[in-house]
Amino acid sequence: MVSAPRLIALDWGSSQLRAYLLGDGGVVLAERHSADGASRLAGGAPAFEQALASLVSDWWTEGGLPVLACGMVGSAHGWREVPYAACPVALDSLHEQAGVVRMAGQRDVRIVPGLCWTPADGPPDVMRGEETQVLGLLAAQAAWAEGSTLVLPGTHSKWVSVRDGRVTSFATHMTGELFALLCAHSVLGRLMQPAPGFDTAAFERGVHSGASGGGAALGRWLFSVRTLGLFQALSPESLADYLSGLLIGSELGAALPGAAPDHPLVLAGEPVLCERYALALGLLGRAAVLGPQAPAAAGLWRLARQAGWVGG
Amino acid sequence: MVSAPRLIALDWGSSQLRAYLLGDGGVVLAERHSADGASRLAGGAPAFEQALASLVSDWWTEGGLPVLACGMVGSAHGWREVPYAACPVALDSLHEQAGVVRMAGQRDVRIVPGLCWTPADGPPDVMRGEETQVLGLLAAQAAWAEGSTLVLPGTHSKWVSVRDGRVTSFATHMTGELFALLCAHSVLGRLMQPAPGFDTAAFERGVHSGASGGGAALGRWLFSVRTLGLFQALSPESLADYLSGLLIGSELGAALPGAAPDHPLVLAGEPVLCERYALALGLLGRAAVLGPQAPAAAGLWRLARQAGWVGG
Repeated sequence: MVSAPRLIALDWGSSQLRAYLLGDGGVVLAERHSADGASRLAGGAPAFEQALASLVSDWWTEGGLPVLACGMVGSAHGWREVPYAACPVALDSLHEQAGVVRMAGQRDVRIVPGLCWTPADGPPDVMRGEETQVLGLLAAQAAWAEGSTLVLPGTHSKWVSVRDGRVTSFATHMTGELFALLCAHSVLGRLMQPAPGFDTAAFERGVHSGASGGGAALGRWLFSVRTLGLFQALSPESLADYLSGLLIGSELGAALPGAAPDHPLVLAGEPVLCERYALALGLLGRAAVLGPQAPAAAGLWRLARQAGWVGG
Repeated sequence: MVSAPRLIALDWGSSQLRAYLLGDGGVVLAERHSADGASRLAGGAPAFEQALASLVSDWWTEGGLPVLACGMVGSAHGWREVPYAACPVALDSLHEQAGVVRMAGQRDVRIVPGLCWTPADGPPDVMRGEETQVLGLLAAQAAWAEGSTLVLPGTHSKWVSVRDGRVTSFATHMTGELFALLCAHSVLGRLMQPAPGFDTAAFERGVHSGASGGGAALGRWLFSVRTLGLFQALSPESLADYLSGLLIGSELGAALPGAAPDHPLVLAGEPVLCERYALALGLLGRAAVLGPQAPAAAGLWRLARQAGWVGG
């Protein structure tokens, strides 16, 4: 028997809007997406309302299904700015800091707050959207809430420390963005050729080099993407995988010493990218667990349940 | 009394061709430049010959003034590929590895080889053009040939170790290119606004952070350009100087431990950039000497004299 719809859950990032119609227990009844990411919508609140309506208005019911969103939709350039919740923060009470916007027809859209973290000895850090993925991951495996390091690779990789149901700290590494920039716009990209497949050996070579010296070697090694290409020590088709290894290795070299050794290390995100991280972690002697893909819907469901915004 | 012309000296880089007419003792009689950099010239040798002729053909004499060039003109995509001279290399004999192209009218253009260096524990490295700047710097101050670290800041900063008249090793840091990429194309550039002047405090803050942990902190600190802007801890006008400090600090944190503490550290290049490096070095407790600007002409003269290609 198909469940009745209970929640419209929105993973609304910078470049994409992804909508889930969730039923009892958070089961996904339907899923849609559009290119109406928060950074692509000019025109303020009406543009967001219009983008949402054009994607899911047929999901709306007379009774008024609750709508919950996470991601850059809650940033200063989003639909409504929702202040960051400061770490350490208990994930069970995150809903108390949610924001709300009221649409035409008295329909409310609630927005999950992002997180901020200011360590004593380092710069402040922020996330929007990943906190909801964290909620979804902890819903998948209750033991991870007791103590874990969650690694969410991507444009801006996040390393999230969880203990006793709280996010105690996190750090952002711009690994994916650096990779894209260097391939597209730097001298390193000039020798690169598209590859027919993944060059494991070139990637592994990069990981070992990038991770050496706690990640400090990056400045020394980056230019080697060019020189190894010039000297034909690596083929033009292998240079991007080598650079990927250097950057991921450098991230791991810098971040691993801060990851509690007795806690599981959980990877979640795009499968191809998670495989690369798992391979690199293995090379550096650290095991990783693969979490469920796309945990945002599960996180939104969990938060809505905690808040009492849905039954079921 | 004005000296007779003795040498046409060409500093022929990727993006620019700079020509000097040199007289006795290497005195600069005239200087010109054009946008015909080596990476902008399609069409092989005839394009290079044409670019040179259109800039300096009125400098040519019947007797046949010698022409000597350095830089990317000697690369695989230049006029003629000249193999790299391998370090350690004695600068006094570098001319023996020069290449030569013969133009119409039996006129020869000699090209200085670049250098390559392959450390036992690291990637290979290369330079083209900077070896000639090194020659010019050592011509300016003979003591630097005995032992010095020459720092040439720029798109690809070079740290060159000199001892007993030899380049013993060198390293490339892509600091300038990373700065330009991150300002122009990354999320970090989005909050930046043009500044009326240099924000020393923001720069110094960046240097201290970037240099910490031997430069390993870059991955951890880069995203702080965004967060310090978001939290208005730095103004939009100060973010570029802060990022500049982070990147230069990271370069210094990685490179300084390899610079012989008993040798002078010499900075040469664009004055504004050298000032930033001198300031950063001072913050990290290391004094630097400012070398002469634009030492390429002096280096070309010195090499031509060593080779016996010019009198005077």
